[in-house]
Amino acid sequence: MTDKKAVSETLHKGVRVTFEADEVLYEETTGHHRLSLISNRLFGKLLMLDGAVQVTSADEFMYHEMMAHVPLTAHADPSRVLIIGGGDCGLAEEVLKHERVKSLTQIEIDASVVEFSREHFSEFNAPVFSDDRFRVEIADGAAFAAETSERFDVILVDSTDPSGPGAVLFTPEFYTNMRRILRPGGILVTQNGVPFLQPGEFQTAMASLSDIFPVSSCYLVAVPTYFGGHMTLGWSSDDRASLDIDEAILAERSKDIETRYYTPAVHKAAFALPRFIEMLRAEAVRA
Amino acid sequence: MTDKKAVSETLHKGVRVTFEADEVLYEETTGHHRLSLISNRLFGKLLMLDGAVQVTSADEFMYHEMMAHVPLTAHADPSRVLIIGGGDCGLAEEVLKHERVKSLTQIEIDASVVEFSREHFSEFNAPVFSDDRFRVEIADGAAFAAETSERFDVILVDSTDPSGPGAVLFTPEFYTNMRRILRPGGILVTQNGVPFLQPGEFQTAMASLSDIFPVSSCYLVAVPTYFGGHMTLGWSSDDRASLDIDEAILAERSKDIETRYYTPAVHKAAFALPRFIEMLRAEAVRA
Repeated sequence: MTDKKAVSETLHKGVRVTFEADEVLYEETTGHHRLSLISNRLFGKLLMLDGAVQVTSADEFMYHEMMAHVPLTAHADPSRVLIIGGGDCGLAEEVLKHERVKSLTQIEIDASVVEFSREHFSEFNAPVFSDDRFRVEIADGAAFAAETSERFDVILVDSTDPSGPGAVLFTPEFYTNMRRILRPGGILVTQNGVPFLQPGEFQTAMASLSDIFPVSSCYLVAVPTYFGGHMTLGWSSDDRASLDIDEAILAERSKDIETRYYTPAVHKAAFALPRFIEMLRAEAVRA
Repeated sequence: MTDKKAVSETLHKGVRVTFEADEVLYEETTGHHRLSLISNRLFGKLLMLDGAVQVTSADEFMYHEMMAHVPLTAHADPSRVLIIGGGDCGLAEEVLKHERVKSLTQIEIDASVVEFSREHFSEFNAPVFSDDRFRVEIADGAAFAAETSERFDVILVDSTDPSGPGAVLFTPEFYTNMRRILRPGGILVTQNGVPFLQPGEFQTAMASLSDIFPVSSCYLVAVPTYFGGHMTLGWSSDDRASLDIDEAILAERSKDIETRYYTPAVHKAAFALPRFIEMLRAEAVRA
């Protein structure tokens, strides 16, 4: 593959994942960022931003389904949902599969990401833009969380990694505001990275979340393009009922949702943490 | 990392994972193979053979623990165990943690792999070579399976991928011999690849195993250096009891085993397949 054009992920020092470009679909390098959209034989369309894979058409469903369907199926009445980040709108697509969702608000800081994704990833996000329940607002997620008087049943934080512009979405202040704008029984799900490669970031988030929320847990998804084994999703709430929920209820609530990763059994299984992840978490929560 | 020496995995066409070498510990390129042993800041010692990562000191425990502890904890009396392949002896180390194992036979085709690993990976395999229950025989695994009159309670096939010299360990003939040399109630566990990147290989193995064994299933592990999301391990037996076993029994049997990945909850959870893997498997088994 040496003769072909390729793009490399350089998120973690010491390892680099290189994707061969069968075709370069779009490229943009400004003072602010480097963006490449390529097609790759294994991953379909792949969007790379500043050396980190953002989304691919072949495996986006894994992360988006697990982030959306786990809290939405567990919640007794997830009528009002908030997404912070999630500019590619693949997460919104999964949320809107639930008829029990009556409104979905998405706060994305960068209008151009939404426009770009609407144009280039319509194969999964097209249904979002014709759905009356969906409203996207271009704003700073941290500022919105601090100021809004709205309240939500489920909040999904689909952020980039806790360095750069996404860092404000990993602070205790932000998590405190998340608790403030959740309705009683509400569930917050956060992207908490890959513990094998980012143990410190994982522990910092787990420590903050368990300080702020009476119920704090995390669950797993394995996504090919997120290198490093399991990725963790943080689960925070003021109520244990949705965490301890029975698989039969999950099956009933998800029976009309079409999925390629999520099943009620996978939902329950995702909370069984490999011991090294459980230990990292216990150490952080105890400290 | 452009100035530093590095080694690349080129197992899957279209993607390449490159590991920076903080130090090159050993290198050998002959007409037969290219072997590199490097140290890497994220993975510790890493062994690359012909463009495929074989083992790293930082994440070997994940694959080896799940391959060993799942069948050994589920089996009522795993006194006689066979490993085919597994030259780095990290799997043997996990097997020998079980006091209920009375003898472990390992059939490895290449003496030099065992010697190399004994020298360079003693941090995990040293206990194996001083254990009286362990016996390694340098022989062809497929030939051994066809000829031996010995019988085993648990057989672990720790092979390379189903191309090249490891291909004979993925044939119906080989699986038929595996059934022949299993005692009643015995369990066979096989490495069946990463379904997202190798769906055909996964389906071929699942179809053969389910033809030959009355009880056929598979379970998951996510290993950072095995790129592509979940890796599958095939589970084959003539008896369902060990598959349907209660978590409390697993907890009792594994309570003195020190682990970093395996827990009884992880054991049960590993059988919950993401829908796309379940569908690939169902399609193959039905055909």
